[in-house]
Formats: sequence, structure tokens, C-alpha cells
Amino acid sequence: MTRCAVFGTGSWGTAFAMVLADAGCEVTLWGRRAELVEAINTGRTNPDYLPGTELPRAVRATTDPAEAARDAEFTVLAVPSQTLRDNLAGWAPLLPADTVLVSLMKGVELGTAKRMSEVIEEVVGKASPGTDVAARVAVLTGPNLAREIAARQPAASVVACRDEGAARRLQAACHTPYFRPYTNTDVVGCELGGAVKNVIALAVGIADGMGLGDNAKASLITRGLAETTRLGLAMGADAHTFAGLAGLGDLVATCSSPLSRNHTFGTNLGRGMTLEETIAVTRQTAEGVKSCESVLDLARRHDVDMPITETVVGIVHDGKQPLVALKELMSRSAKAERH
Amino acid sequence: MTRCAVFGTGSWGTAFAMVLADAGCEVTLWGRRAELVEAINTGRTNPDYLPGTELPRAVRATTDPAEAARDAEFTVLAVPSQTLRDNLAGWAPLLPADTVLVSLMKGVELGTAKRMSEVIEEVVGKASPGTDVAARVAVLTGPNLAREIAARQPAASVVACRDEGAARRLQAACHTPYFRPYTNTDVVGCELGGAVKNVIALAVGIADGMGLGDNAKASLITRGLAETTRLGLAMGADAHTFAGLAGLGDLVATCSSPLSRNHTFGTNLGRGMTLEETIAVTRQTAEGVKSCESVLDLARRHDVDMPITETVVGIVHDGKQPLVALKELMSRSAKAERH
Repeated sequence: MTRCAVFGTGSWGTAFAMVLADAGCEVTLWGRRAELVEAINTGRTNPDYLPGTELPRAVRATTDPAEAARDAEFTVLAVPSQTLRDNLAGWAPLLPADTVLVSLMKGVELGTAKRMSEVIEEVVGKASPGTDVAARVAVLTGPNLAREIAARQPAASVVACRDEGAARRLQAACHTPYFRPYTNTDVVGCELGGAVKNVIALAVGIADGMGLGDNAKASLITRGLAETTRLGLAMGADAHTFAGLAGLGDLVATCSSPLSRNHTFGTNLGRGMTLEETIAVTRQTAEGVKSCESVLDLARRHDVDMPITETVVGIVHDGKQPLVALKELMSRSAKAERH
Repeated sequence: MTRCAVFGTGSWGTAFAMVLADAGCEVTLWGRRAELVEAINTGRTNPDYLPGTELPRAVRATTDPAEAARDAEFTVLAVPSQTLRDNLAGWAPLLPADTVLVSLMKGVELGTAKRMSEVIEEVVGKASPGTDVAARVAVLTGPNLAREIAARQPAASVVACRDEGAARRLQAACHTPYFRPYTNTDVVGCELGGAVKNVIALAVGIADGMGLGDNAKASLITRGLAETTRLGLAMGADAHTFAGLAGLGDLVATCSSPLSRNHTFGTNLGRGMTLEETIAVTRQTAEGVKSCESVLDLARRHDVDMPITETVVGIVHDGKQPLVALKELMSRSAKAERH
């Protein structure tokens, strides 16, 4: 039986623990809060983040990171992106030396502009110097809305790792009749696709809130994926990744789903709410709100033009009026589709 | 004042006549039925296909093709794809020798598997032998749901012509504050993007009707665009066209809109209706129903694998059960994302 640790009891961490269990793994789910861990173990459901989904017997929760990590062939990380570095520093000494580290996170670290796999490599590398950590860092991404997967609706996914063998082992560990993972070796492209889509989803949400139609939203998605691809190429990613499930697929699922936090958050901004009002109403910050500045930071470091990301940063963090921003965006567009 | 003829009084022909008039052109709209033409001229609206939209004064309708064609700098063709050849044969002798022929149609001819621009080249070429017709055939496509454009909501579009100068003149003739056309020279790619998206939209509609979620639909859109791109590359198109407004943009707008005929048609099929029952309920056939066999024909002629198109043909024309087809589609998928 394959042993897996899943760090993080949010909706996606919990749903993916269920997928692993359905695929035949034994899963230990780590959570910080004792009462939630207790509720998961006694009620077989995560009342805070995935209510209504019965978790398989093979999923057990614990507040003890050492217990979660013990003998784990796969260590799945599903904590908020900006907390990863601190959290992982505490867990790294507890992890098995050859465990495959799987990121479910879709953010870019503020300040350093580092992708999650880079943070994992740094932090775990410090705890086990002299080993090739990058070869056992994997990313799982794609059009994977957690609530649909929790309902066992069919979905495809991408598992990316520089080491194809590790990717294939992870693929086997999470393959179920409803969850179909494809392998890929482009870790950078897969991570960027996931991180930037949160920013584009915010833009599409803002357009929705402004009352724009499907034509305008489809154009935003198209131009948004184009600027994501430009950034990816500058960072050494493969253009095909962005045309695939980790790019286009994830972006389209997020933008079309009423379940997406980024989309809902953007809709409120587009209706004219301030950032503070939106946070008050939605009672949480969307990942794209936190990531948009890091993505813009990355774009500037690589000298890539990302007008939609720049517009989102302007609206979210600089209080720019959506209507003014839209007009600027429309007027700066070039006249030939490629330039 | 630029003179334009628009042949066809469907919703998109009528809406585009409005765009041209808003951009400052004088437009003559040709329609077959005298009572509809009369209604347009007296009521300033198209009660059958675009009710509620007031047409500008610069749009006049006629049943006389010679009157419509007279001195037209741009001749816009917006008739049902499968009727183009016969219709155009009658109009070709009436067209000005240097008029730019603009296709708004998104189909592939049954039997010949020819794109609309090829049909135009053949038919107009016969009527004016010895001239380079291809240099003045243009395609207008992109995420352009007619009802949104009729409401003057912001939209971007693509005008493609082998002759860049003609593309730029057409761009200027239809550029308004709400309608933003980009130029492109890849006529083949732009046409294929438009034609195949109708087939993929049917597939997404079928998935909707079966109760599948946004994850599965996003995967269908992604893999659908991938098979469209494969066909395009085999036919000499540019891969970038499919990642742009004419490919991804049009596909996403069509698949996310509840206004799309292809999507609605597919939804009924996915709920278990037969083709005949669906036609009876929707009272019309969607373009993708007519085009899917031609697209599959094209794929076979170019030795390209198009599993989603093949599945749609199976469901629509061979009475295959959607659930059986879905299972076949899921099981034939490869294990690495690219192969």
C-alpha cells in the first residue's frame, strides 16, 4: 500500500486526499487545528472546507506532522502559498529522504517572486544538503475544481516532474476512474499556468461585474493566456504547456465556474466595491489578489509585457476604476493580432 | 462613403451590417424574402433574427442582388454555408470586379470538404477568369456572438486576408468604439478555427446535457482546440492562429454562451434526445451538426486524428449513446499530455 502525506486541510487538499485513497493509497492528512482534525476522524468529512463529502476509511487526519510524514512515498503540500516557506521549514527534517514532494499550490511568493517548487527545493535542500531535491519535486495542476472532484465527476489533470519516472509513479498513485492524470516534464510552465490563471480569472470576474458579455470575456481569456505564454517562454517553459490542461484547461475551468473564489472576488470589484469591501463581503482573499503583484514582479524581472496583469494590479491594489482601466486596456492593444 | 453589400439577413449578417454602418459605411442588405426586407426598411429592425435592435439609417435592405452589389467596395457573404455555392453562382456576375469578398460563414462544404473561402474563389473565379480572386477573399471571425454585438457590447475580432492591404482596409471599414478588429494573414487557420469550434461546442453541450461539470468541459475545450490545431498544421495554417481570437477566443465564447445554437443543440442530445427529437425541439439545425461530417472528412484526407470530432459524428449521425461515447473517449486518451 502506497503511503501518502497530505499537508493542508483546505478543500483541494482534502479532495485530493480522497482521490489518493480512491486510487488505493493510505493517506494521512495533516491539519493545524485539533477540532477540525478530530471532526475529520470522527465524522469522516471536512465540515469547514468540504462539507457533504464522505471521506474514505483510508484517509486519517492528525495534527502531528511527524506522524503524517512517516514513511510517506508522496508528500503532498496544500497550504496557502504565502505560508509554505515557514510551514515547510518546520516539516522538512521530518520528511523521508526519498519522498516525492508534490505541490498543489498555485501561487508565487511575495518579495522573492519564487514559484512554489523553487521554495520547496530551497527549504528541503537546506534540510538535506547534497541531494538533488529538484528531481523529486512534482506539481499537480489542471482544470480541477475541488468540489467537482469531491463529487467524483470526471476530470483530467497534469502531473509534472523533471524526473519522468517520478511523474509516472505519482500518476499511478492518483489515477482513478474519475480522475485522469497526464504526465509532463515542464514544471515551470505547469506552475506558471496555475499561478497566472488566478490573476486572469480576477480580470474576467471584474469584466463580469462590469456587465460585459461573453465576447469580451473570451477575448480577455485569450489575451490573458497569450501574456502567460510570453512570460513562460521568457522563463524557459514550453509553449505547448499553456495550450494544454495546465494552461488553457485550468484557465477555462476557473473562469467558467461560479465556484471560483477569484472569479467571485473579481465580480465584486467590477461592481465597484473597494478591495476592503470585497474582502469584507467574501470573508477571504482570493489567491489572485495575493499573486498578482508577484506575477507582475516576475514579468518585470524577465522584461515581459503583461497588460492584463498590470491592469488587475492597478484595480486591486492602486484603487484604479475598472472602467478607466478597461478603456486603457482597449486603447493600448495593437492592430495586428501578433506583434 | 464606403459602400458595402451584405448578403444574408440572419442575426450575424444583420448585426455586422449595423457595425459597418456605425463605422461610417453605407450598407445594402440583401434578403430573399420580400416581407422581411420590407419589415427591415420600414421598421428599422429585423423582427425575425435580431428583434429589438434598431438598425442605423445607413442600412437599407433589398431583394435585388444587383442593387445590393452595385459599387460595393466590400461584399459580405453571410448565408448558410451549404447554400453558398448555389447562391453565389447567381450573384458573381453582378459583383464589381475589385470588390473584397468577406466571408462571415463558419462551415465546411459537404461532399467537397471545401472551406468557404475556397468555394468563393472557385465560384467568383469562374465568373471573372484570369484574375487573382484569392487576394481579395477575406474572412471575419472571432468571439462575436451576434446578439452581444447588436447590443454594442465590446468585442474583438479578426479580419484575415492573404493581402494585408485589403485586410487593413476592411479593418478600417468596420472599426467602431465597441468592435475592435485585428488583422491576420492566415485565412486557412481563421476559417478552420471557426468551423471546428461549432463541432467542439456541440461536444461541450453534450457534456453539459449529461450533467458533467466545468472540469470535464474545460478538458474537452482544451483537447478540442488541440485537435483543431493538429488539423490546421496539416493544412498549412499557423499554430498561433488557434491560440488567438479566431481559435481559442471564438471557441470559449461559443462554449460559455447560453445563446449558442450549437451548445443548446448538444445539451439536448446529451440529455438523451435523438437527432430528430432535438431538431423538432430547437426548430433548426446547428451549424456543427452539418459541419461535423465535413470536418471529419477533412481530417481523414489529411490523415489527422480527431477523436472528439469523431465522437460527435458518432452521437449525432450514428445514434451512438453519449455515455458509451464518453467512456470510449476517456479510455483512448494517451497517458502523456503530448504524444
